[in-house]
Amino acid sequence: MVRAEIITIGDEILYGQILDTNTQWISLELDKLGIKTVRKSSVGDQKAEIVQILTEAQQRADVVFITGGLGPTKDDLTKKILAEFFSCSLAYHPEALQDVTEFFAKRGRELSDINRDQALLPTKCTFIPNKQGTAPAMWFNEHETIWVSMPGVPFEMKAIMETEVLPRLVKYFKLPVIVHQVVKTVGIGESYLSDLIQDWELQLPEHIKLAYLPSLGIVKLRLTGFGDSAERLHAQISSEYEKVMPLIKSYVFGYEKDELADMVGKLLVSQQATLAVAESCTGGYLAHQFTQHAGCSSYFLGGVLAYANDVKINQLGVSSDILSQDGAVSDTCAIAMASGARQLTGSTFALATTGIAGPDGGTEEKPVGTIWIALAHPTGVIARKLTMGGTRIQNIHLTSLTAINLLRRFLLNELAE
Amino acid sequence: MVRAEIITIGDEILYGQILDTNTQWISLELDKLGIKTVRKSSVGDQKAEIVQILTEAQQRADVVFITGGLGPTKDDLTKKILAEFFSCSLAYHPEALQDVTEFFAKRGRELSDINRDQALLPTKCTFIPNKQGTAPAMWFNEHETIWVSMPGVPFEMKAIMETEVLPRLVKYFKLPVIVHQVVKTVGIGESYLSDLIQDWELQLPEHIKLAYLPSLGIVKLRLTGFGDSAERLHAQISSEYEKVMPLIKSYVFGYEKDELADMVGKLLVSQQATLAVAESCTGGYLAHQFTQHAGCSSYFLGGVLAYANDVKINQLGVSSDILSQDGAVSDTCAIAMASGARQLTGSTFALATTGIAGPDGGTEEKPVGTIWIALAHPTGVIARKLTMGGTRIQNIHLTSLTAINLLRRFLLNELAE
Repeated sequence: MVRAEIITIGDEILYGQILDTNTQWISLELDKLGIKTVRKSSVGDQKAEIVQILTEAQQRADVVFITGGLGPTKDDLTKKILAEFFSCSLAYHPEALQDVTEFFAKRGRELSDINRDQALLPTKCTFIPNKQGTAPAMWFNEHETIWVSMPGVPFEMKAIMETEVLPRLVKYFKLPVIVHQVVKTVGIGESYLSDLIQDWELQLPEHIKLAYLPSLGIVKLRLTGFGDSAERLHAQISSEYEKVMPLIKSYVFGYEKDELADMVGKLLVSQQATLAVAESCTGGYLAHQFTQHAGCSSYFLGGVLAYANDVKINQLGVSSDILSQDGAVSDTCAIAMASGARQLTGSTFALATTGIAGPDGGTEEKPVGTIWIALAHPTGVIARKLTMGGTRIQNIHLTSLTAINLLRRFLLNELAE
Repeated sequence: MVRAEIITIGDEILYGQILDTNTQWISLELDKLGIKTVRKSSVGDQKAEIVQILTEAQQRADVVFITGGLGPTKDDLTKKILAEFFSCSLAYHPEALQDVTEFFAKRGRELSDINRDQALLPTKCTFIPNKQGTAPAMWFNEHETIWVSMPGVPFEMKAIMETEVLPRLVKYFKLPVIVHQVVKTVGIGESYLSDLIQDWELQLPEHIKLAYLPSLGIVKLRLTGFGDSAERLHAQISSEYEKVMPLIKSYVFGYEKDELADMVGKLLVSQQATLAVAESCTGGYLAHQFTQHAGCSSYFLGGVLAYANDVKINQLGVSSDILSQDGAVSDTCAIAMASGARQLTGSTFALATTGIAGPDGGTEEKPVGTIWIALAHPTGVIARKLTMGGTRIQNIHLTSLTAINLLRRFLLNELAE
């Protein structure tokens, strides 16, 4: 297994002024090649800190990626430190000098001394051109380790990695094969899911590992296989998932980058059905789950944001008796809202939400987090009571997911009712 | 200077499946307190790697923050390793047990063994409650270092830091005095703002520093003062802001944690006015900007999600002539939508959006990113054309902010029209 370490150099990232996205991108690319990232580190523009992390990294990794610290200003130390670390000097690199000269000539700008110095490189490095900017990248084979130093500007780094570095890595290392497959579930918590599939997890072969990736309302399962044939690993992982699928099928809404509302939208399209919403407590967020995805106009018609009771009555036809007797947070109100939205828009289905998202507005009988959702379908209406204990935003989010999941299960004929 | 190290534990971040945003957030919070981050590291779910980074960190830092690896499943190792690292055992912590029991009871769910084990904590730790989730945080004072271990779920970690950890750090360490004040602007880009206030920036005293914190549609200005009296620094910073305010006043919508829609909501309440929306391309997201804030029911009545043209016609009374002659993406349609929503709900104001959020659906005449917004008010309707070049989500977000800002400026009598 080839082991990689990724280092970012620079105070902006260390102190949080910039969100580091380079490191994630590099590790995902390495993962695809079967190179295992073993450490990610971020240090500041301090010589002692940089030398220390380089010293540590060479003990841990076969290949070290360094981003940042290559700018033309005096707080950019990477090149000088690398030259010292590898016991060599800095010298103008002819190709690098030509590149930086052309870069400025093309833009009609004068080449200052400071910019010319971008072509000063440690003599032991292999020059790697940067077509997008002025700081070249460098490749070293020193101390039994490959070192790749790149500028920190994301689009420059990505172009250098894709065109120059990744192909070199594939040539240089004998790489294993790593395959990931993600299955996405909704409507079951991480611990329940883990209980449900623990026997399956225990029987997984040594070279296939399971990870749970939970977020609010959604748990992703990821199987990662290690071997020498991607094809064989894909088949093995698929067959492992097949074994567990009977247990988890009703929770699975998609794979890899699939998103819940988008998948339900595709189900609607495949059934030539349309959708409307009637939102009280989710206040537009439920609709946004669908409308954030391109292509939603082929099934999403619209709906009513019925925050005030008058809108529930006037637009959705909720009777004032329901509101006075059962209140807006009730099964009858949710049902009337869903039916109203369906009738109003002529949609096949309509989802409604009404409840107390919090943090205020609860009563003893209906505490904060009491929420009703309803699904109007061609032959009736289904209502569900939810009890939530999160923040306002979490309750809105989870209510929306739960409503979408109710529709998903109806479309798949998975509801008992 | 108090030195901090931030460690994330977990294969998901190491391999890049998840973008780590926790580390940036923590370092920004520490920066505000005058604690200097000296290293950020990410390691996987491997005992040897975790022990190694803990051993390294205690040599570098006065306080170590650890996020992740606290879930209930067997690949979560942090607690066991911390217990071993600090030579103690794991035991059920009574308060933690009570918290996790209540967490499940509140949600009407059974407490499984796996969840009960969330209350198993190293005996040497100080228990730090997690009100948002089931994995408590831990505080250790061992090996002449403070160690804080927190769950990796961002909203849980942030709540724990804000309510428990940051106050403890302030008590425990003798920290320098650093004062931050944030002013929030909307409707002006970073570089224009920077041009506008450059003379002011140059005259700032040595001990007060300016930072621009831009995000989509919003630019925050942050002045940071260093000294020995918080009171004096606050006064000095306020007086600096007073100097620049005449230049930027019309862009400033709030301070510190104020959010645009919430501030506009407060303006509406103060003018005893109400709001409705008619959303096409923003698809619920505009309403969500208001309804995500508690208290919105005192001014937000609701509205219509008019995605399909039929909904625009039937619910909002947009004439079919407008749709056939000018199309849905037009000033006339936006105006009719806003007027319709205002009439329908009886609100004081109504905001409408209609346009092509992308990535598809553009024409030569109306390319992707062509969007109309309108504001219906008691004496007329104002429409504005927007031209956007972002992704679908960015266009939806920026359209919503721009519509809210149109209402803000109207409420403040800042519109020429």
